[in-house]
Amino acid sequence: MAKRIPVAILGASGYTGAELVRLLSNHPHAEIISLAAETNAGKEMAEVYPHLRALDLPRIVALPEVKWNEIQAVFCCLPHGASQEIIAQLPRNVRIIDLSADFRIYDSATYEKWYGHPHMALGLQKEAVYGLSEIYRAAIKNARLVANPGCYPTSALLPLVPLMNSGKISLDGIIIDAKSGVTGAGRKALQENLFAEINEDVRAYSVGGHRHVAEIEQTLSATALGTKVMVTFTPQVVPMNRGILSTIYLKMVPGVAATELREILELQYENEPFVKIMPPGHAPSTREVRGANHCFINVFEDRAPGRAIIVSVIDNLVKGASGQAVQNFNIMFGFPEDTGLNQVAVFP
Amino acid sequence: MAKRIPVAILGASGYTGAELVRLLSNHPHAEIISLAAETNAGKEMAEVYPHLRALDLPRIVALPEVKWNEIQAVFCCLPHGASQEIIAQLPRNVRIIDLSADFRIYDSATYEKWYGHPHMALGLQKEAVYGLSEIYRAAIKNARLVANPGCYPTSALLPLVPLMNSGKISLDGIIIDAKSGVTGAGRKALQENLFAEINEDVRAYSVGGHRHVAEIEQTLSATALGTKVMVTFTPQVVPMNRGILSTIYLKMVPGVAATELREILELQYENEPFVKIMPPGHAPSTREVRGANHCFINVFEDRAPGRAIIVSVIDNLVKGASGQAVQNFNIMFGFPEDTGLNQVAVFP
Amino acid sequence: MAKRIPVAILGASGYTGAELVRLLSNHPHAEIISLAAETNAGKEMAEVYPHLRALDLPRIVALPEVKWNEIQAVFCCLPHGASQEIIAQLPRNVRIIDLSADFRIYDSATYEKWYGHPHMALGLQKEAVYGLSEIYRAAIKNARLVANPGCYPTSALLPLVPLMNSGKISLDGIIIDAKSGVTGAGRKALQENLFAEINEDVRAYSVGGHRHVAEIEQTLSATALGTKVMVTFTPQVVPMNRGILSTIYLKMVPGVAATELREILELQYENEPFVKIMPPGHAPSTREVRGANHCFINVFEDRAPGRAIIVSVIDNLVKGASGQAVQNFNIMFGFPEDTGLNQVAVFP
Amino acid sequence: MAKRIPVAILGASGYTGAELVRLLSNHPHAEIISLAAETNAGKEMAEVYPHLRALDLPRIVALPEVKWNEIQAVFCCLPHGASQEIIAQLPRNVRIIDLSADFRIYDSATYEKWYGHPHMALGLQKEAVYGLSEIYRAAIKNARLVANPGCYPTSALLPLVPLMNSGKISLDGIIIDAKSGVTGAGRKALQENLFAEINEDVRAYSVGGHRHVAEIEQTLSATALGTKVMVTFTPQVVPMNRGILSTIYLKMVPGVAATELREILELQYENEPFVKIMPPGHAPSTREVRGANHCFINVFEDRAPGRAIIVSVIDNLVKGASGQAVQNFNIMFGFPEDTGLNQVAVFP
Repeated sequence: MAKRIPVAILGASGYTGAELVRLLSNHPHAEIISLAAETNAGKEMAEVYPHLRALDLPRIVALPEVKWNEIQAVFCCLPHGASQEIIAQLPRNVRIIDLSADFRIYDSATYEKWYGHPHMALGLQKEAVYGLSEIYRAAIKNARLVANPGCYPTSALLPLVPLMNSGKISLDGIIIDAKSGVTGAGRKALQENLFAEINEDVRAYSVGGHRHVAEIEQTLSATALGTKVMVTFTPQVVPMNRGILSTIYLKMVPGVAATELREILELQYENEPFVKIMPPGHAPSTREVRGANHCFINVFEDRAPGRAIIVSVIDNLVKGASGQAVQNFNIMFGFPEDTGLNQVAVFP
Repeated sequence: MAKRIPVAILGASGYTGAELVRLLSNHPHAEIISLAAETNAGKEMAEVYPHLRALDLPRIVALPEVKWNEIQAVFCCLPHGASQEIIAQLPRNVRIIDLSADFRIYDSATYEKWYGHPHMALGLQKEAVYGLSEIYRAAIKNARLVANPGCYPTSALLPLVPLMNSGKISLDGIIIDAKSGVTGAGRKALQENLFAEINEDVRAYSVGGHRHVAEIEQTLSATALGTKVMVTFTPQVVPMNRGILSTIYLKMVPGVAATELREILELQYENEPFVKIMPPGHAPSTREVRGANHCFINVFEDRAPGRAIIVSVIDNLVKGASGQAVQNFNIMFGFPEDTGLNQVAVFP
Repeated sequence: MAKRIPVAILGASGYTGAELVRLLSNHPHAEIISLAAETNAGKEMAEVYPHLRALDLPRIVALPEVKWNEIQAVFCCLPHGASQEIIAQLPRNVRIIDLSADFRIYDSATYEKWYGHPHMALGLQKEAVYGLSEIYRAAIKNARLVANPGCYPTSALLPLVPLMNSGKISLDGIIIDAKSGVTGAGRKALQENLFAEINEDVRAYSVGGHRHVAEIEQTLSATALGTKVMVTFTPQVVPMNRGILSTIYLKMVPGVAATELREILELQYENEPFVKIMPPGHAPSTREVRGANHCFINVFEDRAPGRAIIVSVIDNLVKGASGQAVQNFNIMFGFPEDTGLNQVAVFP
Repeated sequence: MAKRIPVAILGASGYTGAELVRLLSNHPHAEIISLAAETNAGKEMAEVYPHLRALDLPRIVALPEVKWNEIQAVFCCLPHGASQEIIAQLPRNVRIIDLSADFRIYDSATYEKWYGHPHMALGLQKEAVYGLSEIYRAAIKNARLVANPGCYPTSALLPLVPLMNSGKISLDGIIIDAKSGVTGAGRKALQENLFAEINEDVRAYSVGGHRHVAEIEQTLSATALGTKVMVTFTPQVVPMNRGILSTIYLKMVPGVAATELREILELQYENEPFVKIMPPGHAPSTREVRGANHCFINVFEDRAPGRAIIVSVIDNLVKGASGQAVQNFNIMFGFPEDTGLNQVAVFP
């Protein structure tokens, strides 16, 4: 039998924790040794998530009860803020994939501005590698601490980074209009996320200033070799559980056609198992990636001259969170990148 | 008892026809004399729409059976193309509110380009008044033929026309990213609109070139006193029955702040019963206008300097179709504009 | 102008409170003088329910601030338990429609068994009239305190009471399998009612013992002239906001056919504005009554000899709560029973 | 590498065909050699089902083009009626799992009564084995032709067969009230299944007489050793894609308690990978089995003496169709029964 890496999931009782259990339970080289959570410590996972009842899982424990000497890798699904404190205390030999925002922002002032408090593990922050798998896999491979990207940034950066690298698009005036299912908000009991409030509704939130722009702009600015890139980003919630569709509006460098952008992306991702460029004219939609680790992308010529429109879709809980986390785990431990991630999208 | 205008609804078996029945059944000055439809002629309305069973309605007849001598006003809900042929044959004393796109475009070449066939009632096309009630009510008042606006254009033009009039926004680079419920596609049995295909999905369509841009650009260009305005418009379908949320991205003239735009709109609409500017910071959502003839709007400052973001919501079947049609009927016949339109939004 | 009864709504920030505002805002003989609530006291109603923004409503006050000397009728939407304490303190000249369960059960032991605490207003409990409008309108007319029925009981009792009165159905073996939208659970922030938990799910709850059986059995037993009737009742939540569909399984007295049951109901309700018996073979569904005060019913012959199946649908927030409350208000104050209740169902 | 059985899927462009592709694409011992369909012949599967784009699949061919000499097993997803004609012509060495209703009913008169036409492959009908895996696996093992059960019957029979075998429940008065997602109706473009018609609706259909009762009664009567069992069955559509929840009302033999029924089921299924009896008091819901081949069951004591209530949930496309088909394939070819079926439920 294949060797299995013993792993822990911290914050196992949130949606991304449960999704990690779903994905890892079919992973031939990972074994879930510990599930830890705060409020649900002491419970069976099946009490918290009845859909996992048929699996043989360890009982949920409190964080201090995790036996770190048995663990080689940890998926950290704790809330922003809590994550950095816990991670700072982990043994140095444990490799970490952090799904919170805590180690995504390299500049501590920027972190503090968007997250409202000073960073409490500045040393680690420097060490963290931004885990956008297809773009940074070389650095991820050797990282001890991977900051798993946010869901919105993943959907936007996978098309934008190669295009910016190509020099064919304008650095300014990029607009990202994103539509997300409601699981992005987590399992916390909030009135605004009750079924009766979300159903038959579309709403925009954090208009003109959502935290995820920090992450997007940091990556795009780095891609632009230091030129500060600023984007307009509007997140919207639509009545579905899973999925993000980002519609991205771009200006092209004079003389460039949208078909060229499509070709650049096709070339960039032609051997990738998870990122697929659609045939010309087909606009991907979120149902096509539901439950799978895919990002489906296409590029369209706008009627307005010199402008292009990109449509990019992911499942926010998979490629936008737990799936990309497993992909990073595979990179870090030298497994083929799609190990345990061959789930076909669940449609209808 | 108040005098009632005898009206006919052509194309009564589509969603906008049924919605007109809902609205007019509580209108004190309209009486539905004829319901006409092609495939459902001969049926009771309750067979086609069981939710209307408790109403006392005439049986559906075929179009040639409508007794035009009894009718003073007609709501025409026929498909694009069919509408112009029928309307060309109506008696001159019948006043018409056409919910199709047939008389919205003044330029026949533009019509032909977007709708794929030459216009067959060019004379009437000149006579038609574009029925965006709050903007063109003076012309609507005396019109024989009102071209009721499309749902997407209504949501976009109500904020954009006054802002363009103000001279505070740039004429170029306007981007309208719209999210619509599925009733905009009508009741035709299409595989792509089955529940299992729409549920848990967000999809973009006609990316880079949807017919409604013709209508939007015609109105904005007229507002700009002839300068040709071009917009970027992306429609998207989200899993809900009713509602459109348009997110509009604008550049402001240098030195203008987004708060000024908000004030312009507030001033423009302060006495309007149906268009409401939200308090600063509140992003309206579609559930707030579900079933009502409202358009709720707000303006936000973008982080990118000199840019503003507008969020505008309507119910596509009410203010985006049948409600605005009744509003235009009220204008044409001299009734207070909100007569029969005092439905409160149905939430949750 | 018509005289308007000054009314108060206690518990205005719940779903049934907001629905009362929607219905009463178009009622020609009611005027909302006070909106009271606990946690939202001090706020504008539009802050709590943005869909009511276009209405001119009083600011929400705390319960002690209601000026009772100005009020003639109160709609009480407080939680079970809280209701009885507040109502016991109201001035005797105020007439009360209580939407909680507090005064529905006449037997104090039965109340205590199902609601877990002794009743604290036993005197009033005797005085209360069960507000199933079509059945008890004579008593409702003169009542000071009307106990508005539960949503499940309304959907089940409207068909069952006349059938039991007819002597054509067996008193035992009645099974009510009910499917409800999620607004029946109120607006409280509960994890189990988050969108992502309810969407794409059907769940049964309180299987074998839901509180509403007390109310159903009390009414059926009274109808059976004291013979104790016991029913099987299973409530289920389906992913929609509004609506209850009750499927009721009956045994008929030997020799009776299901068509006879249908005729009994047709005769019983032929002049009722809100209760409609469907044409033979048509199974009503919840979309047909969405937003309206209707109860649509039909009776079907089962294949199993001697058995019939009834399908009964209501909107839980209208005929199942606030609509029936307004209907009872109309009965109590001598207005035509459908005053302010002519909303047509909102479909699609 | 493990030996793979070459398989064909006929009717590949329906939902059950696409679901078979999803499940078989991760099956180590099956290889999809042919995908056949009528209307979509000539297309890539990704054109018909974009969510399958990342898979390497054969192009869809017309039925006559399938190379039967290369095929050892066929999954037949053709419509009722068409299936029997095609299957009658297949080579004798090909083993067949038929997902239609064509070979589920052994009595040809019963078939003709419910399906409206004489059976056209009577010889094969006798040969067919009813593929309720957990109950008939011994016969399935050696069958050439397996009639895969209907979705409603699967959810009802898995609890009912062992209970009937136990002699603890009454043979008469069984009532099955089932709630289904809309995919059970297939992908055909029907107005009644449009999103806007299904959303915010619950509807009953075929009340008092749905085809699936034939299948349920045949199996229960066989279990009752020939005593003719008659059931009451009401199917209902709820607004979700996948899932069936069956609420089953039973009378117990005098002296029996519901806990005994639960124990019987627990004993019956204790070693089964897919059928799970829930802990006492937990009512399973459809989200717990979404996308997985599970059937989750529990038994409840009713308040009415001597009565029990069973709640049983499956995913109609998995255990109710394609998943059980793969399970039967595993049984027929001697693979462990859960091969390729270890998908964890996708929640939320």
